[in-house]
Amino acid sequence: MKNTKISNAVIKRLPRYRRYLIELHKKGVEKISSKEFSNLIGYTASQIRQDLNNFGGFGQQGYGYSVEGLYEEISAILGLDKEHRMIIVGAGNLGQAIAKYTHIQKSGFVVHGVFEINPELIGKKIGELEIKDYEEVVDFIEKENIGIGIICVGQDSAQEVADKLSFAGVKGIWNFAPTDIEVPKHVALENVHLSDSLHSLAYHMNDIQKKEAKIKSKEEKE
Amino acid sequence: MKNTKISNAVIKRLPRYRRYLIELHKKGVEKISSKEFSNLIGYTASQIRQDLNNFGGFGQQGYGYSVEGLYEEISAILGLDKEHRMIIVGAGNLGQAIAKYTHIQKSGFVVHGVFEINPELIGKKIGELEIKDYEEVVDFIEKENIGIGIICVGQDSAQEVADKLSFAGVKGIWNFAPTDIEVPKHVALENVHLSDSLHSLAYHMNDIQKKEAKIKSKEEKE
Repeated sequence: MKNTKISNAVIKRLPRYRRYLIELHKKGVEKISSKEFSNLIGYTASQIRQDLNNFGGFGQQGYGYSVEGLYEEISAILGLDKEHRMIIVGAGNLGQAIAKYTHIQKSGFVVHGVFEINPELIGKKIGELEIKDYEEVVDFIEKENIGIGIICVGQDSAQEVADKLSFAGVKGIWNFAPTDIEVPKHVALENVHLSDSLHSLAYHMNDIQKKEAKIKSKEEKE
Repeated sequence: MKNTKISNAVIKRLPRYRRYLIELHKKGVEKISSKEFSNLIGYTASQIRQDLNNFGGFGQQGYGYSVEGLYEEISAILGLDKEHRMIIVGAGNLGQAIAKYTHIQKSGFVVHGVFEINPELIGKKIGELEIKDYEEVVDFIEKENIGIGIICVGQDSAQEVADKLSFAGVKGIWNFAPTDIEVPKHVALENVHLSDSLHSLAYHMNDIQKKEAKIKSKEEKE
């Protein structure tokens, strides 16, 4: 693997490549050219070659990419060839949904504990998992060798939780709280800001509507 | 408002600006310079001026931005000054969590119906909402003037649901199914690919670990 700094844009595209490779594998496809891949995934063939070249280039001239080989390489680059042990802080609706989200569990990301401060929720079960007292979270992370902490609390407590999880030794934080948090340099952070995504959708809807209104008023004038 | 095409990158930043403006407003701050805003939000002051200039520039030289004014302008640009009527298809864990996600409801996005094909779920309640038969979705969208459809079904049915919702007249689709779907040109689409986000986190964790290992091996040599 090359040692150059890979741009965030490329990294964001890798899971998408991987998803398409899984589909191709399911259909029994063994190899694919950058041109065919382009038709499928919607990026240009040159973009695809450039992206994959970042990691050393797996394709062979005139042969294309091996679907299985490329899948395994991308999985390794993404660190998906090992099990990721996770905990969730916050057992509200979103925390519970994430805990039950089988799609994640299937791909090697396994939730081993869910933690809450609300005494009415502590002791209850989410599937096989018993909701634990948030007081125990540092011990649990250390003993159970947890790598990823998932934050599903409100925005007011998110930073405090992130500090505690980082202190306890997680290597990555997946943040669902609708706020920006800070983490130490040695901890990776990925935010899922659902409201931001919805606002972005509203903008595009608004934009399409405005364009349609403009076309309509132009037609009426003619 | 200017008529130039606004880049997706700018649009993605607007909800974040808006979130910070809400915080500032709560704290009683009335105006803010691009420099102060920069310290808070982490973008450069010149980036902030450039971003906001896309919409005509709300700031006054030597005065800064009015927090409330900017908040209202950005809200209008994002189409958040009106109520958005939504439905959810898929009443599994994720669909239920989204239905109960108060943070969204508070900001003018209101779920008016949840639809399922699973007969065991139809008729059950999520908060105030009764889960309805998916067969009724087209009628409901037309009668209730629904603008946004939220897809919380599995990847195999996602495209079919998107087609039906588009046909019924929604203006936007918020897709949580872990697959890429296609929509007609007049429909806006926003994807939340949770697995992609988690894979991106795993990549960054892997990357930090590799860098740390490199530093360590260098130190040991010295």
